[in-house]
Amino acid sequence: MFRPLPLVTLTTDFGDGSSYVAAMKGAMLAVHPSLRVIDLSHRIPPQDLLATAYFLSDALPHFPMGTIHIVVVDPGVGSERDLLCVLWNGQAILAPDNGCWTGIEPVTSDSPLTVYRLTARQFWAANVSDTFHGRDILAPVAGHLALGVSPGELGARVGQWVRLPLPAPRTFGRTVHGEIVHVDAFGNLITNITAAMLGDRRVVRVGNRPSARWVRTYSDAEPGTLVALIGSSGRLELAVVCGSAAEVLRVRVGTVVTAGIDCKS
Amino acid sequence: MFRPLPLVTLTTDFGDGSSYVAAMKGAMLAVHPSLRVIDLSHRIPPQDLLATAYFLSDALPHFPMGTIHIVVVDPGVGSERDLLCVLWNGQAILAPDNGCWTGIEPVTSDSPLTVYRLTARQFWAANVSDTFHGRDILAPVAGHLALGVSPGELGARVGQWVRLPLPAPRTFGRTVHGEIVHVDAFGNLITNITAAMLGDRRVVRVGNRPSARWVRTYSDAEPGTLVALIGSSGRLELAVVCGSAAEVLRVRVGTVVTAGIDCKS
Amino acid sequence: MFRPLPLVTLTTDFGDGSSYVAAMKGAMLAVHPSLRVIDLSHRIPPQDLLATAYFLSDALPHFPMGTIHIVVVDPGVGSERDLLCVLWNGQAILAPDNGCWTGIEPVTSDSPLTVYRLTARQFWAANVSDTFHGRDILAPVAGHLALGVSPGELGARVGQWVRLPLPAPRTFGRTVHGEIVHVDAFGNLITNITAAMLGDRRVVRVGNRPSARWVRTYSDAEPGTLVALIGSSGRLELAVVCGSAAEVLRVRVGTVVTAGIDCKS
Repeated sequence: MFRPLPLVTLTTDFGDGSSYVAAMKGAMLAVHPSLRVIDLSHRIPPQDLLATAYFLSDALPHFPMGTIHIVVVDPGVGSERDLLCVLWNGQAILAPDNGCWTGIEPVTSDSPLTVYRLTARQFWAANVSDTFHGRDILAPVAGHLALGVSPGELGARVGQWVRLPLPAPRTFGRTVHGEIVHVDAFGNLITNITAAMLGDRRVVRVGNRPSARWVRTYSDAEPGTLVALIGSSGRLELAVVCGSAAEVLRVRVGTVVTAGIDCKS
Repeated sequence: MFRPLPLVTLTTDFGDGSSYVAAMKGAMLAVHPSLRVIDLSHRIPPQDLLATAYFLSDALPHFPMGTIHIVVVDPGVGSERDLLCVLWNGQAILAPDNGCWTGIEPVTSDSPLTVYRLTARQFWAANVSDTFHGRDILAPVAGHLALGVSPGELGARVGQWVRLPLPAPRTFGRTVHGEIVHVDAFGNLITNITAAMLGDRRVVRVGNRPSARWVRTYSDAEPGTLVALIGSSGRLELAVVCGSAAEVLRVRVGTVVTAGIDCKS
Repeated sequence: MFRPLPLVTLTTDFGDGSSYVAAMKGAMLAVHPSLRVIDLSHRIPPQDLLATAYFLSDALPHFPMGTIHIVVVDPGVGSERDLLCVLWNGQAILAPDNGCWTGIEPVTSDSPLTVYRLTARQFWAANVSDTFHGRDILAPVAGHLALGVSPGELGARVGQWVRLPLPAPRTFGRTVHGEIVHVDAFGNLITNITAAMLGDRRVVRVGNRPSARWVRTYSDAEPGTLVALIGSSGRLELAVVCGSAAEVLRVRVGTVVTAGIDCKS
């Protein structure tokens, strides 16, 4: 059961200040003028589906039931790819069927994903362009959802959708090998190794550097120290205290990170 | 007749995260604390009136009647230039009289533009600075408009205002010559040639490159292909599939684009 | 007496489009789904407390009573530093106790600052991370404040807090020496010399340049002229008309600016 809030978030790769974002805000408010619009990000790297997946899995779990999320990272706009309405944990995600919401998983077996394919044109703009379905389909559909249109009216339920192959950490003996999946504005390196996968491995290495110092939080070491910790996403993270680990280590998304057991302990 | 929504958009050249934008949001909320504020763009290139005009003509038509738009791209702040309230298609635009809203045209002969010059100081801040009329005049006026003050109370109606000379495409024989007026975050090149001006010309050239391949949407060609299409603004657009046409062609706003008839067909 | 509006602003150094900002928006909306969220800035230079102080002192005075401001510029997250709720002029500021809100001063002796230390865990997230108190403490506390929880319920009142030593202008004979404290998106140089400190000094110099031309507003001189004026913050400002003073003079935050009396007049 989806009970909508008049609350629509936007996640795109259009860039800040894009007229495309402005037009989408207009298009959803034209359907439902008392909506609240919440910008999540317009800085997803252009057409980067993997970055979108990590972004959404960090952000969406914090939103209340009833929130409607629009995601427009859509290299295949105008092609035969579908547009979906995904019901997840009482929230709705409107997105292209290109895997950009991979990582949004059923919370419990009682709350499986319910996914609809958008086909009901009465909820779209009167004229749909070939290059901007965000404005002409997703934005008005969000307005209608917020007005109380049932997700089931948007189109038929589907049982299959595109999933991205997210890079999974692998274990070799006592060592787990993961990779950097996001670099934040501070230059902190967020990996795909969860706290559960990490276990009690505390010897964390990136490249051929000496292992990072294990800490609870950034301020637990002197400025300039390379530290490793469980970050706010619940995953292993590397940082340089009061500095940028990305700059100091000259690494980026995709670089391998390993974590092992201290042989001496 | 203007029936206001408590919905104010902001378009400025102040840059993202500017305290000027923050102060304007405060100033309008101080007048009308239950307003909704919608950021359109704070990335208009500094003092670029032409870019503002194209931005607004792409974004504003999608908003509902009753929306109030503030535009602050104002190289002449503090000079004798006027500030205007433009009623257009049931929406209100508050902007300096410097042509930044050129391109917003009467929708039909039944809905001409009605333009007022802001002079009624009772709707302004108590102290008006010489350098920031966006905060001290436009923001509080937006608040009062949203509260229900009639546009006619803001000042006298005027019959003349500044219009920018927008670059117009020209036709030479079977060829139309236009120019790039905007480069988006993907590096797509948006021209000033509308679909109507283009007609059935499908041989599109920029610089001395071979003509672009005509497509319906970006995904209709192989990655790396230079394509031409009617974009979401209804104008001729050039793009490189899965790439940046601006980078590949090394062109920018102002570069000439030509479109002609295929001699062989 | 604090009467909350359902209006929460955000000022952070997370960078535009950060998933951290998105998660904070979710976390406050999860507590109070009909909040309005207002982005002030996510472009505070990383961990720059002084820049935060100037930003807040320029922005916050324009907001209505009842506004709730969250500030997350927090190099000491997870350490023993406190989190505060500051009541100021009928507004509430939620911020780390690191001096980032220095410059927010009591408006009159009738409205002193009232400051609480956040300790009441019932208003925090169920699980508080070591590295992201903005999401896990400040955002839900903002939601509860907006719902009507009294600031006094958040924790005990305190009488001391961290203040930054803001650089103060000094007077040597007839000359006042200040410094640049902010460079805006136009390259204008905002100093720490207030109009009151400046008095009738009109010979304004930065570096070994000839003195700037004194004007009332930017448009009072020819393009390219270096001008000095009282800017919209009520402080001395240097600008290059239709240009960037920061680029032309190659100066930045911290550069000394002097103002004196014209000997010839």
